[in-house]
Amino acid sequence: MALRRSYSLSGLLSRLSFSSSRGRACVSPILTTQQRNQSNKIKVDFDQSTGVAVMHMQSPPVNSLSLDFLTEFCISVEKLEMDKGCRGLIITSGQPKVFSAGLDILEMYGKSPEHYAEFWKAVQEMWLKLYSSNMVTVAAINGSSPAGGCLVALTCDYRIMADNPRYSIGLNETQLGIVAPFWFKDTLVNVVGHRNTEISLQLGLLYNPLDALKIGLVDQLVPEDQILAAATQTMSKWLAIPEHARQLTKSMMRLPTVDKLRANREADIQNFVGFVTKESIQKSLRMYMEMLKQRKA
Amino acid sequence: MALRRSYSLSGLLSRLSFSSSRGRACVSPILTTQQRNQSNKIKVDFDQSTGVAVMHMQSPPVNSLSLDFLTEFCISVEKLEMDKGCRGLIITSGQPKVFSAGLDILEMYGKSPEHYAEFWKAVQEMWLKLYSSNMVTVAAINGSSPAGGCLVALTCDYRIMADNPRYSIGLNETQLGIVAPFWFKDTLVNVVGHRNTEISLQLGLLYNPLDALKIGLVDQLVPEDQILAAATQTMSKWLAIPEHARQLTKSMMRLPTVDKLRANREADIQNFVGFVTKESIQKSLRMYMEMLKQRKA
Amino acid sequence: MALRRSYSLSGLLSRLSFSSSRGRACVSPILTTQQRNQSNKIKVDFDQSTGVAVMHMQSPPVNSLSLDFLTEFCISVEKLEMDKGCRGLIITSGQPKVFSAGLDILEMYGKSPEHYAEFWKAVQEMWLKLYSSNMVTVAAINGSSPAGGCLVALTCDYRIMADNPRYSIGLNETQLGIVAPFWFKDTLVNVVGHRNTEISLQLGLLYNPLDALKIGLVDQLVPEDQILAAATQTMSKWLAIPEHARQLTKSMMRLPTVDKLRANREADIQNFVGFVTKESIQKSLRMYMEMLKQRKA
Repeated sequence: MALRRSYSLSGLLSRLSFSSSRGRACVSPILTTQQRNQSNKIKVDFDQSTGVAVMHMQSPPVNSLSLDFLTEFCISVEKLEMDKGCRGLIITSGQPKVFSAGLDILEMYGKSPEHYAEFWKAVQEMWLKLYSSNMVTVAAINGSSPAGGCLVALTCDYRIMADNPRYSIGLNETQLGIVAPFWFKDTLVNVVGHRNTEISLQLGLLYNPLDALKIGLVDQLVPEDQILAAATQTMSKWLAIPEHARQLTKSMMRLPTVDKLRANREADIQNFVGFVTKESIQKSLRMYMEMLKQRKA
Repeated sequence: MALRRSYSLSGLLSRLSFSSSRGRACVSPILTTQQRNQSNKIKVDFDQSTGVAVMHMQSPPVNSLSLDFLTEFCISVEKLEMDKGCRGLIITSGQPKVFSAGLDILEMYGKSPEHYAEFWKAVQEMWLKLYSSNMVTVAAINGSSPAGGCLVALTCDYRIMADNPRYSIGLNETQLGIVAPFWFKDTLVNVVGHRNTEISLQLGLLYNPLDALKIGLVDQLVPEDQILAAATQTMSKWLAIPEHARQLTKSMMRLPTVDKLRANREADIQNFVGFVTKESIQKSLRMYMEMLKQRKA
Repeated sequence: MALRRSYSLSGLLSRLSFSSSRGRACVSPILTTQQRNQSNKIKVDFDQSTGVAVMHMQSPPVNSLSLDFLTEFCISVEKLEMDKGCRGLIITSGQPKVFSAGLDILEMYGKSPEHYAEFWKAVQEMWLKLYSSNMVTVAAINGSSPAGGCLVALTCDYRIMADNPRYSIGLNETQLGIVAPFWFKDTLVNVVGHRNTEISLQLGLLYNPLDALKIGLVDQLVPEDQILAAATQTMSKWLAIPEHARQLTKSMMRLPTVDKLRANREADIQNFVGFVTKESIQKSLRMYMEMLKQRKA
């Protein structure tokens, strides 16, 4: 396909929140056109001397996690994982004001069950690859990061966020009538604990950077222009640890969570397909898109 | 039965603590008489326009969780749960200075094993109904809330407590020689984490409101005369969330804990009956009651 | 054996850290000689009037957990456990500046697989005895406490640390290329939660007392000369709780973690033996010891 409008489920919500009375920044324009070709949604800078790769997500306007994006993302991560010279991965955004707005709503609307299944498998794949990566992974969160965007950050070993109070982060699926699947939940519990997760997921909370820091959803705040420097500094510290022991330790911490999805992968896909093909959900998604089109016009 | 003295296991302890040198308020009188008829221990105000019900516990003197009280409580919750118009439940106390003093000690003393079993089943039933409720549940804790009273609060989605330093809350069973069962423990772990639970249960700690807030045992403190207003405000926020998604999310968070009791319900009852029929426990309970009678006299 | 040099795996690391630019105290001398006879590595003062025993670890220079030490340690704990008059155990160090430097590196170098298996079984035994002890256990951490030393402290019901900023505590195995086994990990998760454990174990962090307090790795800081008094005071508070209820509660909290090791004990031993007999690990241990000898010389 050549030109296609990209809607992001979470982006939509973000936009709604952003334009609320709480004075958040407006990520605009949500509705825009973008060139789709398979190899330019992710830019990877790999420095062989340090063994650190920086992945810039650059899928305008808001790094929505479309099927194409996820496919390219997974291929990029896999390549780096196979490269013995690559020991650390920093994930950041090449787009202004947003890290990633999460799952692409277009992949969830008006498609076939087979398409939904393929899409969801790609979402699972991304999480599996990142959450169990042998590399040290650092999220340099230089913009808002709702829903699937937050999930990407949560898979990393360390999260540094720009201290811009207009940015927000969280698994806000519930706000849109969507339920975060169990492995999103497990990932969040592993970071902020059971009680914070219960409140956070039930209310679909988006946190500003300071509140995110307070509950441990991110590990560090820095001025936006220092975020890559800070990520690089953190990376050096982590890479100084004996590698094999660090990898085994990471695996020990995360394997039970990873295995839970691996053991239930097909059921989880069927669950997603069953949910998203519901008429009520399709209607709700259509209404969101209509509303955004009107806003745009 | 017409008139009957009501003793509360936790109430007793509370009274002991209250009269200690730490200057807590005395919940008095513990030993009083009360009219027992099946339908006045709980007053429910249901506002159909908002979809919110307020349950006032009003079983003098200290809302002890007797078999009658629990039965009425469960019926009330069940009715509201079945009513599609009811989406939120606020639980508060109609008695001064106490939210609920916990399990009624009279139900655990000098009765038959069959009675103990029936009583414990009712305690389980209350927890099962509240912890897995589809409604949004908010505890407006306007008084002390030891043991079973704390458990009622812990089952809710959100806990607001009056900021009166004379009030206290906690699972203090150990102080009385009783062991909180595994599902009390699981509920507490889900709220304050493993380490806080370990200290809290081993020492049978009662926390003042500020300390309870610090460890996350309650979510918010407000002046006592604003507690219902605050609960109502919180309720509005929670009811604004798409309902089906919120319910599924709540269930995802709590089902494993609920299923653990469901799968072990009969064994848990037998465990309680075996414990409470021990001569040493009966003796210890009798001594408490004697002591209180003498105090009263 | 009469005289033998004692190296401590963690002690080595501690020494490295201590001599770093961050200005930590130097635990010296690491390389020293010590008299080995079976009965003087642990001094137990048992006060029958209070029911409290104080175990002073006094195996110069740094209370390394050698096979002999562990054997004597376990026998001492077992004796106290069997003594119905003994209800509380305070563990502290008789050596200056160090609580315990952790597993003795000499037990892991140049020995037979059978020796490694015997050693690891003794490490397991110590943890099993302490973590499931019916006594109230308080760690009076009057010095640095890396790796296995930290594990000893973590098994206790309560941890009081001297507020000397030169002391440090943590499961820093990864720094030495070693992986903390799953039950070290479980014990830490139970105290500081999943996220703190993930960072802590992956980076092999040693915390100063203040940072340890902040994440809950220790419960209280006091000036070093008041540490035994503080431990005794805490002990009195815990011993005031009805004993049987407290023991059952402790068991309820810890049994699942204990059972996990019990069910996998042999596999865990084989895992350790397989790891430590690797040529790469042996080489790495030899290099550490050589380096230390040269430093000493």
